[in-house]
Amino acid sequence: MDFGKMSLELHEKMRGKIEVISKVNLADRVDLSLAYTPGVAEPCKKIAENPDDAYKYTSKGNLVAVVSDGSAVLGIGNIGGQASMPVMEGKAVLFKKFGGIDAFPICLDTQDDEEIINTVKNIAPSFGGINLEDIKAPRCFYIEERLKKELDIPVFHDDQHGTAVCVLAGLMNACRLVKKDLTSCRIAMLGVGAAGIAICKILLNYGVKEILLVDRKGIISKGHPETWKSEVHKEMAKQTNPNEETGTLQDALRNADIFIGVSGPNVISKEMVASMNKNAILFALANPNPEILPDEAKAGGAAVIATGRSDFPNQINNVLVFPGIFKGAFAVRASEINEEMKLAAAKALASLVSDGELHNDYVIPSALNLAVANVVAQAVAEAARKSGIARI
Amino acid sequence: MDFGKMSLELHEKMRGKIEVISKVNLADRVDLSLAYTPGVAEPCKKIAENPDDAYKYTSKGNLVAVVSDGSAVLGIGNIGGQASMPVMEGKAVLFKKFGGIDAFPICLDTQDDEEIINTVKNIAPSFGGINLEDIKAPRCFYIEERLKKELDIPVFHDDQHGTAVCVLAGLMNACRLVKKDLTSCRIAMLGVGAAGIAICKILLNYGVKEILLVDRKGIISKGHPETWKSEVHKEMAKQTNPNEETGTLQDALRNADIFIGVSGPNVISKEMVASMNKNAILFALANPNPEILPDEAKAGGAAVIATGRSDFPNQINNVLVFPGIFKGAFAVRASEINEEMKLAAAKALASLVSDGELHNDYVIPSALNLAVANVVAQAVAEAARKSGIARI
Repeated sequence: MDFGKMSLELHEKMRGKIEVISKVNLADRVDLSLAYTPGVAEPCKKIAENPDDAYKYTSKGNLVAVVSDGSAVLGIGNIGGQASMPVMEGKAVLFKKFGGIDAFPICLDTQDDEEIINTVKNIAPSFGGINLEDIKAPRCFYIEERLKKELDIPVFHDDQHGTAVCVLAGLMNACRLVKKDLTSCRIAMLGVGAAGIAICKILLNYGVKEILLVDRKGIISKGHPETWKSEVHKEMAKQTNPNEETGTLQDALRNADIFIGVSGPNVISKEMVASMNKNAILFALANPNPEILPDEAKAGGAAVIATGRSDFPNQINNVLVFPGIFKGAFAVRASEINEEMKLAAAKALASLVSDGELHNDYVIPSALNLAVANVVAQAVAEAARKSGIARI
Repeated sequence: MDFGKMSLELHEKMRGKIEVISKVNLADRVDLSLAYTPGVAEPCKKIAENPDDAYKYTSKGNLVAVVSDGSAVLGIGNIGGQASMPVMEGKAVLFKKFGGIDAFPICLDTQDDEEIINTVKNIAPSFGGINLEDIKAPRCFYIEERLKKELDIPVFHDDQHGTAVCVLAGLMNACRLVKKDLTSCRIAMLGVGAAGIAICKILLNYGVKEILLVDRKGIISKGHPETWKSEVHKEMAKQTNPNEETGTLQDALRNADIFIGVSGPNVISKEMVASMNKNAILFALANPNPEILPDEAKAGGAAVIATGRSDFPNQINNVLVFPGIFKGAFAVRASEINEEMKLAAAKALASLVSDGELHNDYVIPSALNLAVANVVAQAVAEAARKSGIARI
């Protein structure tokens, strides 16, 4: 199927994908007097007295802004905020479909960090949470960090954390299948952008001890400044590669238990897979063309292969994560989405694949499974409570 | 009925009034592949090549931002952006109900002019138009002017122009009823805020020659700087009060044909009405309590009395205007909402009351009349074309 052509036709026919509708009746004068003047003055006054009442009387508590400056859209690159709108509308409808959350695309006409931060802060009263999307690394780290610090509502850069949570869940199940302890695995990672760093961080938080980050300049190593491309690389070098190894991707893969790719197409050969430890696990997440195709990986001896694609088994798809994460955070009015909530989300997502179902081609639930978000949300809400950031 | 209490209950039960839903199916993998990855890349690329394609492939062309800093909310005053949310959500659902337009509340966490201007410009890619709401005068004039100049989409401060268009329509019909020529009428106006100045300007554009603006310091006069409270007053003094009269509200009303109040409750007595010309027309628009109650005005000899209230005849309600104005502007992708379009809207709105229907208690269509927006939209679209600002 020519998804591109069909997608163009669909978008043109529907003129976009979102619609803003009323939850209340507007049939007669009484309806109007309650939804609008004069009745509407009362909820306004209540909120003026107590700003928290916005959660009681307005849509704020279930509203997410899907914010992008269009600087790193899908695999296309920097196309700007206006051109990112189809993706942000798509994200909004996924929020509604899978999480019951009302989300609205905010496509920005600026790529200046301070302007973005200010703008999001200025429009925050309308929203219960901010989902940052498709903002280029390393700018995305700074923008998210500042907004998390300066806003009292959850701020979540999905390209980082949605992917990271989903990968962790998949790896937990893949390890369960091949009977390895994830925390003792040697992991080679290719691609040190927004997603790569977030995956690395959540794995470290989970307790993984041996991660080798590989970029164009080879394995990133604490003792070798020439392998650092940025401050972020330098920081990650301190926390990974405990034996200060150097070398190429091939060197990193030798005797690795797990490969994670968030880079580009066709960079892994079956011979490289064969050099990995037995029961190798490969998460080849480059989109639309993975680092290695599933058949090729299996020919090299891989036990589990996951990709970002819906036409292969084991699809790593953020839609398994962000609706549930926000739904859980909103349920307890969490002030942020912290590490405990992300780990809880990964565990909940992994738990949805039972021992009986677990299989090389089924380590992660289907992206279409409507039950996922509720299970994730419950775990996330509980983790928020336990970590003391729930506000109701 | 206790609208306040009922409104509170409704808002709490529904948790606000808006919902963001999908216009496209999301039932299976194909649906997801078209609405989101990988298919969604195609419309993104098209828009990156040609920004105007945002109107073709996204919801932009039918989306309005209802923007407020909450500095002048209803009769309540400056309660800030967060507390204005119930009004902005109410406006959004009226846009949808009456104009079929998708509108979204943008409640601001700033009341700094430059911050507001920047923020609206930064989020503009998501929207086909900007409806400014409940921003205090005189700041609203500057903010609207700047945004009109710096954005290529319609920017419309409804408190000014929506009210002005509706008042003009009502006055046209009231004059038709009492057989006076509106342009030759002597008009006394009380209240020189956002709405007052906009009403005055549209009347001047319509051709009215004798308008007396009255504020707390009396009649505003070109020759008397002590009657100017601001630069805006000074500017208006040049265009009104051709005989440079001075005095009080009572002086202005003597021999006036029309009174327009956008001030406060109970400032006009029936004796003052009696001092006006025969067949006096009073638009007493202070909300919720008008400058004079209809019965009192009639006792003073008024022929027509209009208010802002839904429980009296002749309700001046912006909902008769803004849905049709934006619908018409969107239909031809107008780059702005100009004076010609506003005058066309007023004439179209007035025309909806036929000679047979015209009556002291029916000079303006009902706010619930769902036919209004289409008629207004058609006239507005035509005016946009004629004035050369239509883009399709």
